[in-house]
Amino acid sequence: MASVDKPADPEYKSSSSTPAPAAVDYFNVDVLLRILLFAASLVVIVVIVTSDQTEPFPPGSFDQRELRFKHSAAFIYFLVAFCVSGLYSLLSALASFSVIQKPDLKLKFLLHFIFWDVLILGVIASATGTAGGVAYQDLKGNDHVDWQKVCKVYDKFCRHLAGSLAVALFGSIVVVLLIWLSVYSIHSRVPK
Amino acid sequence: MASVDKPADPEYKSSSSTPAPAAVDYFNVDVLLRILLFAASLVVIVVIVTSDQTEPFPPGSFDQRELRFKHSAAFIYFLVAFCVSGLYSLLSALASFSVIQKPDLKLKFLLHFIFWDVLILGVIASATGTAGGVAYQDLKGNDHVDWQKVCKVYDKFCRHLAGSLAVALFGSIVVVLLIWLSVYSIHSRVPK
Repeated sequence: MASVDKPADPEYKSSSSTPAPAAVDYFNVDVLLRILLFAASLVVIVVIVTSDQTEPFPPGSFDQRELRFKHSAAFIYFLVAFCVSGLYSLLSALASFSVIQKPDLKLKFLLHFIFWDVLILGVIASATGTAGGVAYQDLKGNDHVDWQKVCKVYDKFCRHLAGSLAVALFGSIVVVLLIWLSVYSIHSRVPK
Repeated sequence: MASVDKPADPEYKSSSSTPAPAAVDYFNVDVLLRILLFAASLVVIVVIVTSDQTEPFPPGSFDQRELRFKHSAAFIYFLVAFCVSGLYSLLSALASFSVIQKPDLKLKFLLHFIFWDVLILGVIASATGTAGGVAYQDLKGNDHVDWQKVCKVYDKFCRHLAGSLAVALFGSIVVVLLIWLSVYSIHSRVPK
C-alpha cells in the first residue's frame, strides 16, 4: 500500500527512506543454500547407511552380533526424513534456479517455498532429534532400566551416528536460513 | 504499491481482482493460535512432570525402583523446550494482542514473529522427536542390544509420555500454522 499522504504512482517515488520494493532479491543465495541442503542430506544418508558393525556382544562373549541402523525405528525415520529432504532440496533448487531470470514468478515461488520449507524443517528437526535421542542412549546407556552402553562395543557405529547427526543439525540450520531469507525477501517487497 | 495501471489512491481502488493490500489481517487468529500453543506447552509440562512411577524392577524382583523423567536427558530436553515455547507463546500472544489496534506496527511484528516462530518450531519439533525416539525404545525395547521393554513395567510413566507426545505434536502443528499465517499475511500486503 502506498503511503496515504503520497498517493502518486509509487513506481516513481524516490523520496522514501526505505529501499524500493523488489530491490532485495536473494534467489542466488537461495539456490546455493538448497544445494548445501542437498549435499548435507546426501552425506547424512551415506554415513548412516554405512554404519553397520559386527562385534562380540555382550562384551566378552563369543556371540558375534551385527548392529545395523535398521534395528532401530528412530534411525529408519532419520534416513527416510533425509531422503525426503534430499529429494526436496534438489527439486526446489532446480525450481529456484529456473526463476532467477523471471521476476514476475518470484513472489509466487517464494510463498510456496516457505510453505514447504517449514514442513521440511519440522520433518528433519524432529528426525534429528529422534536419532539424537536414541544415539545419546546408545552412548550413555540408562542404569535405571539396565540399558547398557552400546557405544562401548560398537564404536564405529556410534562414530557414524555422531557424524550424521552433526551434518543433520547443519542441514536443519540451512533450512532455517532458507525460510528467513525467503521471508525477508517477501517482506522487502512490501511498500513501507 | 498500487497497481501500475491504476495509480489512484489505493485506499479507494475497488476494481482490482486481487484483494487490497492490508485487507488480509489474521492477528485475531494469530493470538488464538499463540494461546493454543501456550495451553499445549502447559499440558506437556504438567503431564511429563507428573509421570514418575515406582515399580519392582527388573520385573519379578523385590527391588523397588522409581523411574523419573529426569533419568533421561531426552525428557529433560523435552521439558526445557516446552518451558521455552510456553514462555515464548505467552509473551508473543501479548505482543500480538497489543498490535491488533495498531496497523502501522503489524508488518514489523509479523517479520519478527516469523523469525522467532521458525526457531521455536526447530526447538519443539526436535524435542518432540527426541522424546518420541526414546519413548519408542521404552515401548519396544531393542533385542539386538538387550534393552528390555520399560513400558511393560512402568505403564503409567509410558501413558504420560504418550499423552505429552501427542500434545507436543499438536503444538508443533500449531507453530507451523502460525508461520504459514504470518507469511500469508505479509504476502497479501505485497502489490501484485
